[in-house]
Amino acid sequence: MSPFTSRPAESVAALGEARLIAAIRRWLGAASPRAPFGIGDDCAVLRPLRGRPLLTVDPVIYGRHFDARLPARAVGAKLLKRNLSDVAAMGGRPEAAVVALTLDPRVRLDWLAGFYRGLAACARRYRVPIVGGDVAQADGSLAASLTLLGTVTGPRALTRVGARPGDHFYVTGVLGGSLRSGHHHDFQPRLAEGAWCARRPEVRAMIDLSDGLAKDIGALTPRGAASALFAAALPRRAGASVAAALSEGEDYELAFAVGARTDRPAFERAWVRAFPRTRLTWIGRLVRAGAVPPDAVVLADYRGYEHLRRGP
Amino acid sequence: MSPFTSRPAESVAALGEARLIAAIRRWLGAASPRAPFGIGDDCAVLRPLRGRPLLTVDPVIYGRHFDARLPARAVGAKLLKRNLSDVAAMGGRPEAAVVALTLDPRVRLDWLAGFYRGLAACARRYRVPIVGGDVAQADGSLAASLTLLGTVTGPRALTRVGARPGDHFYVTGVLGGSLRSGHHHDFQPRLAEGAWCARRPEVRAMIDLSDGLAKDIGALTPRGAASALFAAALPRRAGASVAAALSEGEDYELAFAVGARTDRPAFERAWVRAFPRTRLTWIGRLVRAGAVPPDAVVLADYRGYEHLRRGP
Repeated sequence: MSPFTSRPAESVAALGEARLIAAIRRWLGAASPRAPFGIGDDCAVLRPLRGRPLLTVDPVIYGRHFDARLPARAVGAKLLKRNLSDVAAMGGRPEAAVVALTLDPRVRLDWLAGFYRGLAACARRYRVPIVGGDVAQADGSLAASLTLLGTVTGPRALTRVGARPGDHFYVTGVLGGSLRSGHHHDFQPRLAEGAWCARRPEVRAMIDLSDGLAKDIGALTPRGAASALFAAALPRRAGASVAAALSEGEDYELAFAVGARTDRPAFERAWVRAFPRTRLTWIGRLVRAGAVPPDAVVLADYRGYEHLRRGP
Repeated sequence: MSPFTSRPAESVAALGEARLIAAIRRWLGAASPRAPFGIGDDCAVLRPLRGRPLLTVDPVIYGRHFDARLPARAVGAKLLKRNLSDVAAMGGRPEAAVVALTLDPRVRLDWLAGFYRGLAACARRYRVPIVGGDVAQADGSLAASLTLLGTVTGPRALTRVGARPGDHFYVTGVLGGSLRSGHHHDFQPRLAEGAWCARRPEVRAMIDLSDGLAKDIGALTPRGAASALFAAALPRRAGASVAAALSEGEDYELAFAVGARTDRPAFERAWVRAFPRTRLTWIGRLVRAGAVPPDAVVLADYRGYEHLRRGP
């Protein structure tokens, strides 16, 4: 369904601001607490946080992160889950979210209802109240940006920094074919897995995969080091090529480094006990720059998703 | 200066994503802490908060909140200050912000530099680190949404709810003529005044004025009550009509209710001691519905700024 309509009576313009906000609160339902703990005051007032706060923001934009083929409910869920994946990558727990929507007055009311209902269902599932937001008109546009507040669950936040040459790389799940398979919207953010990693001292650095492994692994690779990944080791979605697994992006899996001296069989057994249904795969090692084995993937050949490039 | 250019070499598309993000970090400078406390990891990691968190989000959109006449630096400052005004209205203190930018690849690099430098200068002034963000392409669009995390400074957050018939209304500063005078971007959010009000038990409810007093006072008016405001009492900017003061919007002043039995002269003296340079004006009272005096303003005649209305 196209999010847009030429019939004013079916569009958000038919409601005007006050009734649209009332409708949004209805669509969000139990996912949105009452003011001042939710929508309806100048700010939302939250309960005190235990642990250090985490803050992240990610959008969904029509024509970029979704189009008319994706059901509105899936767009709403994807918006929240993209951000949950970022909190997962720090080993955090989500606490509350706000959503800023910019939309053309011709956006269909029933599209918007689906979007907020999908967001609400996802918010209830992951226990993240939608505590506020903003709706603003922007002609020709349909975009929503969600800011997620989280907290560090354990003694530390796991960051992208900390891997050293000799460390082993692991990845959760399977890679590639995300758009084709629907994984890009029906994935489950790896919150429990991320929190588990943050409590394991042998895990040194972690990231969630959104732009493709070949690009994202760079963020775990310190200056003077290089990542040696092996094509044969990559866990691929059925039908996905090695190139797809390395560069298509939107995998929303975790990639992390464990220390060189880790007892890997014991680590992998502990993982299987904790997450019997989440595949974990060794994919390579961090090495000193210049010491990449000849059979490793040449990462520069797979540049992954590059934002803000002009078409030809 | 138009934010857009037809010359690729002068546009953000000339940089691509990685170099654009590096440029943004350079433009933000000291306003943006290093990762993981700022830009550069999956989430920003903040220091633990003292007090209950406050969360709010507000955008600036090209063609709606700014145009080519407003300098880019002023757009960046306005984006942060709109949100600071919301935190002020709860009596809160700002803690950290994230910014989600959506832009056409034809946006001028020097416009964007000005935007982030203006945001950074304002962030340093109000001691709000810009800890993260997102940059995404959206053809034909230029919009930024800022989410501000704050904390309650005193024993309570001051909300919009709590005024009772008999209470007196006050407003800070002067109203009307905001666009004409430049106040809409060079205003100072009333953070100190808001925090002071939250510590005064006689202040019962508060809001910041963004859509015009006539509309916004409705949020302080409970069911079964009505607001009696007096035209002659309204503090107006030089050259602003009563209608302008009631309905033009973008005043970013505080309006609040104090209890009916308040010793008003003593309250006003305390205000002047605390804020000798911030004008405070009594503008009317909350009354029972149906008991609005005949000389009060008929608020329904001034509906203020209505979002999401279609043009003729």
